[in-house]
Amino acid sequence: MSETVTIPERSGAAFTLSSGQTLTVIDPKGMQVADLLAFNARDVDEVISSGRTLDYAETIRLTTGHSLYSNRSNILLEIIEDSVGLHDFLLTPCSRETFVHFYPDLPQHRGCFGNLAAALEPYGVLPDRIPVAFNCFMNVPVDGETGKLSVEPPVSKAGDRIVFRAAMDLVIGLTACSAPASNGGSFKPIAYRID
Amino acid sequence: MSETVTIPERSGAAFTLSSGQTLTVIDPKGMQVADLLAFNARDVDEVISSGRTLDYAETIRLTTGHSLYSNRSNILLEIIEDSVGLHDFLLTPCSRETFVHFYPDLPQHRGCFGNLAAALEPYGVLPDRIPVAFNCFMNVPVDGETGKLSVEPPVSKAGDRIVFRAAMDLVIGLTACSAPASNGGSFKPIAYRID
Repeated sequence: MSETVTIPERSGAAFTLSSGQTLTVIDPKGMQVADLLAFNARDVDEVISSGRTLDYAETIRLTTGHSLYSNRSNILLEIIEDSVGLHDFLLTPCSRETFVHFYPDLPQHRGCFGNLAAALEPYGVLPDRIPVAFNCFMNVPVDGETGKLSVEPPVSKAGDRIVFRAAMDLVIGLTACSAPASNGGSFKPIAYRID
Repeated sequence: MSETVTIPERSGAAFTLSSGQTLTVIDPKGMQVADLLAFNARDVDEVISSGRTLDYAETIRLTTGHSLYSNRSNILLEIIEDSVGLHDFLLTPCSRETFVHFYPDLPQHRGCFGNLAAALEPYGVLPDRIPVAFNCFMNVPVDGETGKLSVEPPVSKAGDRIVFRAAMDLVIGLTACSAPASNGGSFKPIAYRID
């Protein structure tokens, strides 16, 4: 079994994941969010697409058995295990601008967007290419009648996990989320393992 | 008053819209969808972002008073009038691949994606840069409990419209949607006017 890697609070990482390998994203302390991005490792212009994925899945609640699609309608990742069942695929990673918007009184932070941009830069991914992320453990209820959404604390408990299998060679971006609302104001690490 | 332009059924158009101008998108016969994209005319790497917009608006139901944001958190368009109040901002434009997925028995079509890619090519927009569109008049109810979504016929009637004001110089992509589910199986034109 491979080593478990920790992403420290309010930071991010990028790494390659080969076709057939699994990526386990773990919430080690509970109630923390991990923004996940995926790119075709051979051509980073092919990128995870919320719009394609939600269209094919016919639900905004993705869990075991669902696939995450690219902008070219290819499967990038399949969700093969999920101990939480509540994730978000509507919102873009928090950024300096979202901190100004939502937390004008808090110290500013480059957010998951800045962390992802820095981590993905060596792989040739430009900041403008960062789309809606698959936000593991992020709890964003939507009111079906009014359409209103809100960012609530995750329901994930310590040790909860979601497992993805790569359907092609990928570059992955992954964060331990930096936005207070996403994790109930308590910044914590995220762990991951590749098998 | 400027001329009203018709986009024939199952086709698309692209044009520039200057800061301060308004774009009126009209459903001339009722129950038809128009996928709308917007790019910064001076730098098409800045593009409409569903994830930023939904985050700032805190709702998936955008209407009069809401702004459509870019991937750089700038306002591209403001919705200043809306006679329908029911649009979609979750799904990517229908494409050849979505026709294969959803309508395997129908003649294939390049869809709104192909129409947008062709119309936007002269402006330097690559197909891989086409994100989730703001789908005018598209009716995609979401079940708040289960997360299930479905594509239902629009509630727009003949002559219904939505009016946007440009907050910067833009390149706009706009379609008369090609997917049977979006418009109740009846392909119709879309009209627009710039003032």
